[in-house]
Amino acid sequence: MPHAPAFTALLFGLRGCLVDFGGTGLDAAGTVAARPTPGALDVLAWLHRHQVPCAWLDDVAAEHGKHLSHALPGWLHAVHHGDARPWPAPDACWKALMQIDVARLDGCVLVSGDPRLLQAGLNAGLWTIGLAACGPLCGLSQEQWQALDDKQRERKRGQATLQLFGLGVHSVIDHLQELADCLADIGQRRIKGEKP
Amino acid sequence: MPHAPAFTALLFGLRGCLVDFGGTGLDAAGTVAARPTPGALDVLAWLHRHQVPCAWLDDVAAEHGKHLSHALPGWLHAVHHGDARPWPAPDACWKALMQIDVARLDGCVLVSGDPRLLQAGLNAGLWTIGLAACGPLCGLSQEQWQALDDKQRERKRGQATLQLFGLGVHSVIDHLQELADCLADIGQRRIKGEKP
Repeated sequence: MPHAPAFTALLFGLRGCLVDFGGTGLDAAGTVAARPTPGALDVLAWLHRHQVPCAWLDDVAAEHGKHLSHALPGWLHAVHHGDARPWPAPDACWKALMQIDVARLDGCVLVSGDPRLLQAGLNAGLWTIGLAACGPLCGLSQEQWQALDDKQRERKRGQATLQLFGLGVHSVIDHLQELADCLADIGQRRIKGEKP
Repeated sequence: MPHAPAFTALLFGLRGCLVDFGGTGLDAAGTVAARPTPGALDVLAWLHRHQVPCAWLDDVAAEHGKHLSHALPGWLHAVHHGDARPWPAPDACWKALMQIDVARLDGCVLVSGDPRLLQAGLNAGLWTIGLAACGPLCGLSQEQWQALDDKQRERKRGQATLQLFGLGVHSVIDHLQELADCLADIGQRRIKGEKP
C-alpha cells in the first residue's frame, strides 16, 4: 500500500461500505450475514497502523448496527445516528468527528456508497469518496455482483459512478480495495491547495 | 448597506464582538454594562431583514451570557458552550450550526475578536472575520479606546490585525460597522471559487 496517508480522520458508512455489499442490510435485517466488504479489513488495518482516527456512522438502529458491525475490529469507533437530523443534514458527520476528538475539519474524509450519507458529508465540508459497486446504487449482494458478466457490471458501475459524481463527490472508486490509491490522489490534490 | 449577503449563516462571538467592547466582561462580571458594540444592532437588523440565520456563541457560563446579551434582539439565537471541548476545538462552532439548523457548512461565517474562538472557527472549516479594535487583543473599553490619540489607536490596531492574520483568519476589520463591506468582499471571493 502507498505511504502513510496525511489525513486527519476517516469516516466510513457501514452498510454498502465496510460491510453488507450492496447496502441492503436494513431490508434483510437479522438475516443478512454481516461480512466485511472486499478490502475493508485491510484498509482499516492500514489506517490503524498509521494512527489515522477512524469511525463508522450509519442511520440504522443501534442494535442493528451492532449486529452488522460485529466482524469489524474492536478499536474502530461506532457512531450511532441518535437524534441527529436525518441525512443529508451535516449533523451526523460533525457528531462523528466530535466523538473521535478530531482537532480540525481539514483533512477529514468520508467514504460511503450511500448518496444520502455522501450528501451529508458534502454538506459537512468533508472530502467525500463514493463507492460505486458495493453501495445501494448497485444494490446487489457480492454473489449477485460476481454472477454478472463484465458488460452488465460495467453498465451498473458506470451508472452509479455518474450518479455519485453528479452529487459532487470528490472521487469515485468501485470498492475499498482501491481506497489507498484514491487517498494518495486526494493527498496530492490537497498539496496543490485544493479544498473540498 | 450593500446588497443582501449570500451567506448560509453568521456566528458571532459575544464578548468583544456583539457586546462588551474590549472583551473584558468576564473579568468584570456583573459590573460591566453590557452595551452592544458600535454597529452590532445595525448589522444584526440587516442580517435579520435578509433572513440570514444568526447566533452568538461564547464560553461564558449561561447566567453570565444571559446578563451580557440582554440588550441584543430576542430573535438572535444564544448558543451556550455547554460541555463542548474548549476552544480551539471546533465542536462549539459545529454545535452552534446544528442548533440553528444550517443545511451546509458552505457559506457559514464566524465573526469574533477572540483569537481562541477564531481558531475554533478555522478548525471547524468556517470563513472567519477577526475584529481588531473591539476584542480582547486591544482589551480596552470603548471609552478607553476613544481616549487614545490616533497614533496610539493605530499602533494597537495594527498589532491586533497582524496577530489575527497570523492565525489565518480570512479578513480583519476594526469593528462591526465594517462588517457589511467585509461580507461583500468575501462574497466576491466565494464567487471566484475561493474556499475557507
